[in-house]
Amino acid sequence: MATAGKVIKCKAAVAWEAGKPLSIEEVEVAPPQAMEVRVKILYTALCHTDVYFWEAKGQTPVFPRILGHEAGGIVESVGEGVTELAPGDHVLPVFTGECKECVHCKSEESNMCDLLRINVDRGVMIGDGKSRFTINGKPIFHFVGTSTFSEYTVIHVGCLAKINPEAPLDKVCVLSCGISTGLGATLNVAKPVKGSTVAIFGLGAVGLAAMEGARLAGASRIIGVDLNPAKYEEAKKFGCTDFVNPKDHDKPVQEVLVEMTNGGVDRSVECTGNVNAMISAFECVHDGTFFGNYKPRTDLPNVVEMYMKKELELEKFITHSVPFSEINTAFDLMLKGEGLRCIMRMGE
Amino acid sequence: MATAGKVIKCKAAVAWEAGKPLSIEEVEVAPPQAMEVRVKILYTALCHTDVYFWEAKGQTPVFPRILGHEAGGIVESVGEGVTELAPGDHVLPVFTGECKECVHCKSEESNMCDLLRINVDRGVMIGDGKSRFTINGKPIFHFVGTSTFSEYTVIHVGCLAKINPEAPLDKVCVLSCGISTGLGATLNVAKPVKGSTVAIFGLGAVGLAAMEGARLAGASRIIGVDLNPAKYEEAKKFGCTDFVNPKDHDKPVQEVLVEMTNGGVDRSVECTGNVNAMISAFECVHDGTFFGNYKPRTDLPNVVEMYMKKELELEKFITHSVPFSEINTAFDLMLKGEGLRCIMRMGE
Repeated sequence: MATAGKVIKCKAAVAWEAGKPLSIEEVEVAPPQAMEVRVKILYTALCHTDVYFWEAKGQTPVFPRILGHEAGGIVESVGEGVTELAPGDHVLPVFTGECKECVHCKSEESNMCDLLRINVDRGVMIGDGKSRFTINGKPIFHFVGTSTFSEYTVIHVGCLAKINPEAPLDKVCVLSCGISTGLGATLNVAKPVKGSTVAIFGLGAVGLAAMEGARLAGASRIIGVDLNPAKYEEAKKFGCTDFVNPKDHDKPVQEVLVEMTNGGVDRSVECTGNVNAMISAFECVHDGTFFGNYKPRTDLPNVVEMYMKKELELEKFITHSVPFSEINTAFDLMLKGEGLRCIMRMGE
Repeated sequence: MATAGKVIKCKAAVAWEAGKPLSIEEVEVAPPQAMEVRVKILYTALCHTDVYFWEAKGQTPVFPRILGHEAGGIVESVGEGVTELAPGDHVLPVFTGECKECVHCKSEESNMCDLLRINVDRGVMIGDGKSRFTINGKPIFHFVGTSTFSEYTVIHVGCLAKINPEAPLDKVCVLSCGISTGLGATLNVAKPVKGSTVAIFGLGAVGLAAMEGARLAGASRIIGVDLNPAKYEEAKKFGCTDFVNPKDHDKPVQEVLVEMTNGGVDRSVECTGNVNAMISAFECVHDGTFFGNYKPRTDLPNVVEMYMKKELELEKFITHSVPFSEINTAFDLMLKGEGLRCIMRMGE
């Protein structure tokens, strides 16, 4: 492209100071350096996290700054060492990256990349510790490695997902943050089974995305919990079958949910961030497991077979054996903390 | 059998009162009633739960009582309606049952049977609310539906696992309680993957059984945590690769574990029952998941495809759209709590 390797001048929304309206300014966007990509943003959305760092209450303020992290765009040019992406590719920027090499990236259970995990205080690129944005030569800080409130932005290659170019960017841009967070909380973490009952606490965008996940997973009862009664109508579009407003009840909402569901829900997903809601969300789930979650009649015979196949080594646990008539010896051993298991032989 | 339908006289260890040595007595064991089975106990083991209810501190005392719940035996006779078991079958009694019909028994995730879940205060059979044990006609109470400290006992059919008759009852009897509890906590609940790091808090029989589960699951690093340094040698037989004694450190043990493992263990299993140990066990696990546990580069393209296949409905989330120049409108909407997502169209 004609712009590759050159500074691009474009419009960006700059937050000059905490809580003040953003100002659309002409900024200079430097070319991408090693492992970086310059992206033309076509659509960006506003997420509550942008507002949170714009208000900057109780934080180290980082201003002037270009906020924005939910977006969709097209690669304009790539820096040295970038082989996965090329100009013209459609991408979603993501505030947390994936280096593909660290222990978290190699684990099936974690996405907290050691190199590129979210850092809200850093306003510069990790490669050289500098900003790629300037106004008349004066640096403007980045935000969570994405800064999508700009027509062009520079992003580490590890923070860009290459997507199907047929996908409409004005829709899929919302997958950059909140919608995926809620959806994945249900589909990847809570994993409700088909036909189960799921409670969703907080019916904002993240909560409704969690609800969408419950719907996709085939949950048959989806209970929305929110302090705002107006949320119910909207939530119905996302599969909400029941709505509970904690304000409508004298007892704690977890008790209401346990009664409604004959013992508790199968899964709950907490999307408010409020500690009391977290407690309610924890306590509204049915009890379920003890005795190692073995069903005695169904499963124990198979545990016995594990022993018969010499996989499970039970002999190690049996440290003593006495005639039944000496049962009080077994009590003495346990009270003294000696040994693991004392077997009593009946009929002796 | 010649004894079927008749009262059997045999030896049992009776707890006459809290904390006093058990007394071997001749007891009468009534025939099994509907859905009950009379079992000849061949081997029984002592578990800490027996000691706990024998000490009866802070409990409703239930005496005189026949304790015991870890055991192996052979069916002597069956009551009306029992079709799954017949005289001669080898069985393990279990303190918590499986009716096979309630919602818990039908769930893959729970074993808290509505009908037969453990009840430590009940000293009688659930069928008729009476005891099957007497001494000179005076009832002696049952314990958790098993009362295995008797040569013969009567048990609900739902609390008996029929096992391979080749299995040596003097070994597999320990699967009735503690060993299965620890083993299953790891294999069925924590489910560590091969090669992972597992911490086990508390190296009693349950903790060592949890460790045995980690060994069977192929964990490559198994860290035992116990206040008693003598536990390490024994734990090595169960796969323990590292031992940490919280007393040897000034800092909280969770910090020691996080440092030893470069960020935290993959799984921890708490087998002490101590609340502070539970907190340590929780906090020693590595962080791992946010953004719905999606790996951005690897997984987001597939989420986009869910939208393309019209499974995931993103349009429902997009409630507003404005030109980029009106970005402050998006902030106003969010601050007022209106709508879910406002898309900003760049270049407008």
